[in-house]
Amino acid sequence: MASSLAAGSFHSTSAEEYTVTAGVIVIGNEILSGRTREANVEFLARRLNELGVRLLEARIVRDEMAAIVGALRALSPMFDYLFTTGGIGPTHDDITADAVAEAFALPIDVDAVARARLEAFYPKGSLNEARLRMARIPQGASLIDNPISVAPGFRLGNVFVLAGVPAIMQAMFESIRHEIAGGPRLLSLSLAVPLPEGDIAQPLRLAQSRFPDVEMGSYPTYRAGQFETAIVLRSTDAALLDRAGGAVRQILRGLGAEPRERRGF
Amino acid sequence: MASSLAAGSFHSTSAEEYTVTAGVIVIGNEILSGRTREANVEFLARRLNELGVRLLEARIVRDEMAAIVGALRALSPMFDYLFTTGGIGPTHDDITADAVAEAFALPIDVDAVARARLEAFYPKGSLNEARLRMARIPQGASLIDNPISVAPGFRLGNVFVLAGVPAIMQAMFESIRHEIAGGPRLLSLSLAVPLPEGDIAQPLRLAQSRFPDVEMGSYPTYRAGQFETAIVLRSTDAALLDRAGGAVRQILRGLGAEPRERRGF
Repeated sequence: MASSLAAGSFHSTSAEEYTVTAGVIVIGNEILSGRTREANVEFLARRLNELGVRLLEARIVRDEMAAIVGALRALSPMFDYLFTTGGIGPTHDDITADAVAEAFALPIDVDAVARARLEAFYPKGSLNEARLRMARIPQGASLIDNPISVAPGFRLGNVFVLAGVPAIMQAMFESIRHEIAGGPRLLSLSLAVPLPEGDIAQPLRLAQSRFPDVEMGSYPTYRAGQFETAIVLRSTDAALLDRAGGAVRQILRGLGAEPRERRGF
Repeated sequence: MASSLAAGSFHSTSAEEYTVTAGVIVIGNEILSGRTREANVEFLARRLNELGVRLLEARIVRDEMAAIVGALRALSPMFDYLFTTGGIGPTHDDITADAVAEAFALPIDVDAVARARLEAFYPKGSLNEARLRMARIPQGASLIDNPISVAPGFRLGNVFVLAGVPAIMQAMFESIRHEIAGGPRLLSLSLAVPLPEGDIAQPLRLAQSRFPDVEMGSYPTYRAGQFETAIVLRSTDAALLDRAGGAVRQILRGLGAEPRERRGF
């Protein structure tokens, strides 16, 4: 990959390469009240990365029509793919399907296929009015299989509407991952040393300007009174990543620390 | 509290009561790459709730000027308080202070007080150019103490700029919590039963319309093939919360389940 002069951007900007991007909207008051720790962004970030898609933003919003509609309208045009999690169950606070219909000005009604799936799943008499709401799908959407509790998610354009319960969200994601067309996968190399960031920052800045097409992040942790810093390099170009990794390794050794290395994300 | 007819809103809407609100911006590529699981939103949500402030939205954005500036400009006018976490260290990817200056069109330079704190903390000779960047503060901001590693956060208007490392972020939050003027604290009652949401949804909807000023959320979990549902009621009015709790308790007992109850958030 030719090294381009990245103007004010730290990530790969080679003109030939198109970065496939995604956003996530997490829907649920329970996250914003601190009752539940958010767990879906991490899964989606990792799986998307494996598929060559970069998650660029995540928003956590309340179970309120205006908040969900606003986030859908803002993020759908910004990214190649947009995922929502949460708010597709049978209770009165599950309003995601209606919010998607509202956001894109589409009619919404009980979908025959979704209804048939629920009818086949629930014992006779237990498919009540509330459960039937889970078959409400905006016009033109395609269903997303739910191998755990049947009630489907759906896809509308670039928006994938998934469940909030992590096990169900993950199963839904696996059932649509063939619909995700990623770009080159972002490779990463992490070099961790027991040094504070401030010792590394200056030579690292020089390394970043020598390798503008490699994204270099510095992530400090603080545990039991000790700082550790992980320098994470990311690029779609394995050879370039290795060269940049060699330069950063030399910097860290020059500071007297042997880096603990890990490849992955 | 007089029960008002809440039009399309599930939370407390009594005319006399002003809800104090907050937003959070989490800054960091490491969250969006799946490398690090986000941990600051949960802490801020809980502590804000204790102070009578409701967290209404959180955004996770990349370490990029346009992304941070955009989120700051969008969220600062929307909420009473806005907190940012991350991006205030010494490395080239720490650009939060500059982004705040850019967002609000303010000059930024090394602050004399912040510089003096760093000079007192670091051994002679180790306060290098990179570390000195941690003293860059937008004009007019007030410093936020960092009892762990000295480099300060800052407050500018309703924006509180905190560290990303959880231990430091939490210490910074405690040092500014007296600056947070909350409203009445939101009380909550959780009633958990080993029933799927669909069994509860219809009577719960009726309970919600009987108590429009009590926010009722339904949170399913799925573990080892079993669904459990927690109904969480939230209100600033303890007596009203008790009455609504009584109604929901009756519904759940009517379905043959004795709820496991918990107060808190």
